Amino acid sequence: MSASDENVPEPVRSGTDLSTEVSTLPPDEAAEVIAEIRAVAEQRGEDSEVVELVDLSQTGRARRPSSITLPPMPSELAAEPPTKEEDEALSVDELRDAWPLLDLEERGDGLRVLPREDAEEFFIALSPHDQAQLLLYFRPGQRRQWMRMLEPDDVADVIQDAGEDHRSTLLALLDDPTRKEVQALLAYAEDEAGGLMSTRFARLRPNMTADEALLYLRRQARAKLETIYVAYVVDSDQTLHGVVSFRDLFAAEPKKLVSEIMETDVVRVTEDMDQETVSRLFAEHDLNVIPVVDAAGKMKGIVTVDDIVDVVQEEATEDIQKFGGMEALDMPYLQSTRRAMFGKRGKWLALLLVGEMLTTIPLGFFEDKLHQVTVLALFLPLIVSGGGNSGSQASTLVIRAMALGEVRTADWWLVLRRELFMGTALGVLLGGIAAVRVLIWGAAGAYEGAAGEHFALVGITVAIAVTGCVTWGTLSGAMLPFLLKKIGADPASASAPLVATIVDVSGIAIYLTVATLVLTGTLL
Amino acid sequence: MSASDENVPEPVRSGTDLSTEVSTLPPDEAAEVIAEIRAVAEQRGEDSEVVELVDLSQTGRARRPSSITLPPMPSELAAEPPTKEEDEALSVDELRDAWPLLDLEERGDGLRVLPREDAEEFFIALSPHDQAQLLLYFRPGQRRQWMRMLEPDDVADVIQDAGEDHRSTLLALLDDPTRKEVQALLAYAEDEAGGLMSTRFARLRPNMTADEALLYLRRQARAKLETIYVAYVVDSDQTLHGVVSFRDLFAAEPKKLVSEIMETDVVRVTEDMDQETVSRLFAEHDLNVIPVVDAAGKMKGIVTVDDIVDVVQEEATEDIQKFGGMEALDMPYLQSTRRAMFGKRGKWLALLLVGEMLTTIPLGFFEDKLHQVTVLALFLPLIVSGGGNSGSQASTLVIRAMALGEVRTADWWLVLRRELFMGTALGVLLGGIAAVRVLIWGAAGAYEGAAGEHFALVGITVAIAVTGCVTWGTLSGAMLPFLLKKIGADPASASAPLVATIVDVSGIAIYLTVATLVLTGTLL
Repeated sequence: MSASDENVPEPVRSGTDLSTEVSTLPPDEAAEVIAEIRAVAEQRGEDSEVVELVDLSQTGRARRPSSITLPPMPSELAAEPPTKEEDEALSVDELRDAWPLLDLEERGDGLRVLPREDAEEFFIALSPHDQAQLLLYFRPGQRRQWMRMLEPDDVADVIQDAGEDHRSTLLALLDDPTRKEVQALLAYAEDEAGGLMSTRFARLRPNMTADEALLYLRRQARAKLETIYVAYVVDSDQTLHGVVSFRDLFAAEPKKLVSEIMETDVVRVTEDMDQETVSRLFAEHDLNVIPVVDAAGKMKGIVTVDDIVDVVQEEATEDIQKFGGMEALDMPYLQSTRRAMFGKRGKWLALLLVGEMLTTIPLGFFEDKLHQVTVLALFLPLIVSGGGNSGSQASTLVIRAMALGEVRTADWWLVLRRELFMGTALGVLLGGIAAVRVLIWGAAGAYEGAAGEHFALVGITVAIAVTGCVTWGTLSGAMLPFLLKKIGADPASASAPLVATIVDVSGIAIYLTVATLVLTGTLL
Repeated sequence: MSASDENVPEPVRSGTDLSTEVSTLPPDEAAEVIAEIRAVAEQRGEDSEVVELVDLSQTGRARRPSSITLPPMPSELAAEPPTKEEDEALSVDELRDAWPLLDLEERGDGLRVLPREDAEEFFIALSPHDQAQLLLYFRPGQRRQWMRMLEPDDVADVIQDAGEDHRSTLLALLDDPTRKEVQALLAYAEDEAGGLMSTRFARLRPNMTADEALLYLRRQARAKLETIYVAYVVDSDQTLHGVVSFRDLFAAEPKKLVSEIMETDVVRVTEDMDQETVSRLFAEHDLNVIPVVDAAGKMKGIVTVDDIVDVVQEEATEDIQKFGGMEALDMPYLQSTRRAMFGKRGKWLALLLVGEMLTTIPLGFFEDKLHQVTVLALFLPLIVSGGGNSGSQASTLVIRAMALGEVRTADWWLVLRRELFMGTALGVLLGGIAAVRVLIWGAAGAYEGAAGEHFALVGITVAIAVTGCVTWGTLSGAMLPFLLKKIGADPASASAPLVATIVDVSGIAIYLTVATLVLTGTLL
């Protein structure tokens, strides 16, 4: 992504003062950067009429000479706020506002002009994708300090995002113990419990007293533990015995043993449990932290609820995009390349088009009849879309209920019964509306020739066809997710467009069969 | 919901021992309940073939004589595990498994046969809707103890769910200070920060020392605070000055003042901020707790990240359901009544059907031409659905990106440019595929008469029409959410079916206009 991807970073210089290195732009350049970013942020204001903005497809390209050629600044100077006046400084909010529209170089500059603490906080809160891009964009000499702001589990996400090519470059930035932790985490897939967990949890022994435990935790309060508020009680071979909250320790008799205070009935997950199941457990048990154990019951790490928020958002986004009839983007809308987006959308659209070509089969079969009674073609979109729409509703409901764990595979029968009822009821409602419409227009003389004479029969045809299509559409939409799950596919692929396509083909057949049955002898 | 809704509960009996009252079923009845629930849970096993299950639409109806007529049990007996053998006891997991399929009475019985601690934990983790139903179902004498398991913010949710009619019944179950807290919370809408917050947060004064602060928090560790791990530093009129983590206090010099340790740059929300914005702030700043203040900067409560998980799930479910072309259910699929579901689905289907009736206008206008060249009708669904599908994709992407804050109203121009490009590219791709199909079939002699002679012209017509419909569909799908937002409607209403309906009408007009232009003089 940056020009310096292949550069091997320098070896670790122990004793480097990392605390003042973040701001590395000379004051005059910094002022320029701030002005630029602020301009973008302002243009992006909720109510402004934006006419022309930065082209985001260029995110990866630097437009000015790369910052690698800048002379390194003495750290004393750089540690000063880079602009003279307080109100000239770039604020975190301004940078956040402009962020989606900035290219990689502007992002890097923006981070470097922020005060160090703000920059660190901002960087940590970025998505793994943005972090990975920035890390690879920074000069090798700067990468290390940014990388070390991240916790091992976040580093693992960054490396997973950056891909195999950059793995060793990025791993080399870490100190030995952290690298070992990160490598262990990298063995897990991104979407299983092991890929979500942090290995930095507080441990206690069962035979400590409450007082000793508090002392022990106090010592660890300065360490980089994910949380000291929930501690896991393990024995020497790391087998999980129980969990104790800091609060309970705090409130307990000082001489009481941890084993007497701890809760032994611990909800736990295994390393390879998928993240959707983990998030469901959090919801079911109203948890804030969940321990991850291996098959032998040994403690491996913890997953905290704040990671689950991201998981839930991510899974919902994936489901929504699949449901819209495309592959999940796996990236913010404005940041995905046109090429990737074209592939993910085009593939499904082409597939659906080919599926929709099957509609020519029933239409071809009834072509003579359509020619005889052209008025039938008038109601074709109406009838067919009724089925598609009711199918979309049913499949959305079932897919979402499945994702939330409200409905399981074994419940298909319950869903079938419910949707059979709903489909029929909705079909009768819509059929009635459609019939009324045809009858009014017919009575008003809107249809010519034979169709005008027999408009009541046309009305009956339309009513029966709508009812049939809606019932059929509802049932297919509701059952398709179960079918997909049964054959091992993702139920969320039962998208609105897919259901509509399936229902279109059968809906046309239903409509024209009904027409043949009702109209033969009069119009046909 | 239960027969005793209107009963006024007995006055508070101070000194009531609440710890043993949960299990109130005699042992033989309990055994029966356990067997029943276990049977349902087993039937629901992931791989079983369920053939006939409890009808959930009856959730509100009791099938056996109401438990109100049961003689009250001496609490000593009831406190014993209700069955003789350990492995006969109902487990929490079994009850959770069977839960969606149980009616209200079975749920109540299930809770009452669980060991008290498990029952409490299980009840607290239920949705406000289930909690409300159960509370109203329980005998007035039992309600109080269940109600008191809940935190004030959860009680507020329960009362909001139960509705105006039961408000005073439920409020009467609380002790005076809690009732005051709950009443304050009830003043907020469910979906704003005030409706999410807990009023039980830890407070400190700026001029305490770290040691005093820890001591003060230790005293509160036994109280029902939402968390003691993050304390808010307020002055006597509750103005928020800063935030301090327990961990920082713990690690600090004992004599240091809280005001020296605290972080003063606190991300905060106001009471009336809507929950989507609050959840976005949590994600942007990677927070675990956020303080809620009023317009004057006075501390009102806190929102914790575990509540945000629910918000995120809920908002995603609403968006997904709206996107499927219906009103949000606001209730688990299997638990919503058929009546409510019919209303929420039927309303939109009827609306869409009426919208789709507009397709008869362009079809009627071109009826003569369709009669002349029936082969045109063959490709109608194909062309029109291509536009609808591409529109679904575009609107899904934009709606989700808006919900996640990736795209704002002011970015419409960026989106328009991107989708104009995507729409054209996708249109050319699909138009090409459709043309190839027509040309192959045409060359093979699939079309009769004049259409067979001029099949190349038919192919050109179809290709241009598909390209036009897909470009137009993509643009309409992408812009509709912005338009809806502009007029103050919910962008998520730009559902796949709505976009498809809009594109259908214009797509038919595009198709038949192209056909007229290309085919006049040959086929027309």
